Amino acid sequence: MRYELFYWPTIQGRGEFVRLALEEAGADYVDVARRKGGVEKMMRLIEARRDRHPPFAPPFLRAGKLVIAQTANILHWLGPRIGLSPRNERERLWAHQLQLTITDLVVEIHDTHHPVTSWLYYEEQRPAAKRRTRDFWRYRVPKFLGYFERVLAANGGKCLVGKRLSYVDLSLFQIIEGLRYAFPKHMKRFEKRIPGLMTLHGRVAKRPRVAAYMASERRIPFSQWGIYRYFKELDG
Amino acid sequence: MRYELFYWPTIQGRGEFVRLALEEAGADYVDVARRKGGVEKMMRLIEARRDRHPPFAPPFLRAGKLVIAQTANILHWLGPRIGLSPRNERERLWAHQLQLTITDLVVEIHDTHHPVTSWLYYEEQRPAAKRRTRDFWRYRVPKFLGYFERVLAANGGKCLVGKRLSYVDLSLFQIIEGLRYAFPKHMKRFEKRIPGLMTLHGRVAKRPRVAAYMASERRIPFSQWGIYRYFKELDG
Repeated sequence: MRYELFYWPTIQGRGEFVRLALEEAGADYVDVARRKGGVEKMMRLIEARRDRHPPFAPPFLRAGKLVIAQTANILHWLGPRIGLSPRNERERLWAHQLQLTITDLVVEIHDTHHPVTSWLYYEEQRPAAKRRTRDFWRYRVPKFLGYFERVLAANGGKCLVGKRLSYVDLSLFQIIEGLRYAFPKHMKRFEKRIPGLMTLHGRVAKRPRVAAYMASERRIPFSQWGIYRYFKELDG
Repeated sequence: MRYELFYWPTIQGRGEFVRLALEEAGADYVDVARRKGGVEKMMRLIEARRDRHPPFAPPFLRAGKLVIAQTANILHWLGPRIGLSPRNERERLWAHQLQLTITDLVVEIHDTHHPVTSWLYYEEQRPAAKRRTRDFWRYRVPKFLGYFERVLAANGGKCLVGKRLSYVDLSLFQIIEGLRYAFPKHMKRFEKRIPGLMTLHGRVAKRPRVAAYMASERRIPFSQWGIYRYFKELDG
C-alpha cells in the first residue's frame, strides 16, 4: 500500500506526527504537497464540493479510496497497519486516548506565541504571549508532561503503551524536540523532572530509521512558522 | 450495562456531549460527581498512582473495568453500544473525524472569552477577548459551521453521518445551543447561512428524550463558568 500524506510543505506542524510514524515504519509514502503541484492538489481535495468525506484541514492521508483526516485519527487508523500500535483493542484505544491528550498539548504549545489570534503577528501580541507562556511553564507543562512521565513509569518505563514502540512514543519524541527548539532554557531546567521521558526520547532518536530521517532533507527544519517558534523573551 | 460518567458537576462543559448521547439513548448511567462525595471519587481516579490507564482530565466514563477519557474517544467507543454510531466501520471512523473537528471548535469557543490564559479573569483580558471574538466570528465560525453545513448537505441533509441520528448530530445541536447562549446577536445573524444545521438542530430538540432531558434538572443550566459565556460586549 502506498500512502499519500497531505500537509503544508514548509512546516513540520501536525503533519510531523504522521511523517515520523511513516518513517519509523519504513512505509511507502509520498509527501504530496512537497512535490510540484502538490499544494494545489491538496487544496482541491479540501474544497471538493461533492466529496462525501471531505477533510476539514491538513494533515490528511489517502490510502486507496480512503481519505482520513485529524492527526490522532490518522494515527489510530494507520498504527495497526504499519506495526506501530498495540495489537490488543483496549490498548489501541488507550494509545488513541494518549494521542488525543498530545493533541491538546499541541494547541497549548502553539498558543504560547499566538494567544490572542492567528491574524496578528507575534510582535503585535507580545505581552499576552509572555503571560500565556508563564502559565504554560508554571502549570501546563508540569501537568501534561508529568502525566506522561507517570503513564510511562506505570507501563514499565520502556514505552508508553503496550510492550513495543508505538506512534505515541514517536509523538512524544517530537513534542520534546519541539519544546527544546522553542524553549531551550525552560526545557533544560525542566528535563530533570521527566527522566523517563528523556530516556525514551534518546532511545527514539537512536532508532536507525528515525535517525536517518532526521538527518535527511525529508525532515523539514524547525522555523518561525510552525507550532514551535523561538522567541528569546519567551524563554526567560 | 450501567455507565458511570465523571465530569464537573456544575457545568455542561465537555461532559455535555457525553450526557446528551447517554440521554438520547435512554442509557442506564450515573452522573457520579453530581452525587454526594462524587467529586472526591472522581479526583481519586485521576490521581491514582498505580492505575495503568489514568484519565488526564474529566470527562471520563467507567464501564465495568474500562475507564475511558477524552470526549471524542468516549463517544467513539460508546456510540455503537448505545445505537448512536453508524454500523459500518468506515462511517464510524468518519463520525469520529467529525467529532474531533467539533473538539477543535470547542477550544476556539472557549478561547473567545479567555484567550490569554485561564489564570486571569475575563475582565483582566477583555481587549484580547474582543479581538479574538472578532476573528472567531469573521473567520472561524464560517469555516467550521460552513464545513458542517456542507457535510450535512452532501449526506442528504437529514443527519451528518450515515442514515440515522448519531452522536455527531447531538454534539452539533449542543454547539448551536451554546453559541446561541453566548452570542445571541451574532448567532441570529449567522443562522441564515446554515439552514441545514438549523433544521437539524430543531429536529434534535424535538426528540422526546432530548426534550425531556432539556426540561429536567439533569440538564445543568448555562452559566458564566463553562465553555459558553455571555458577555454583552463580545456579542457586538
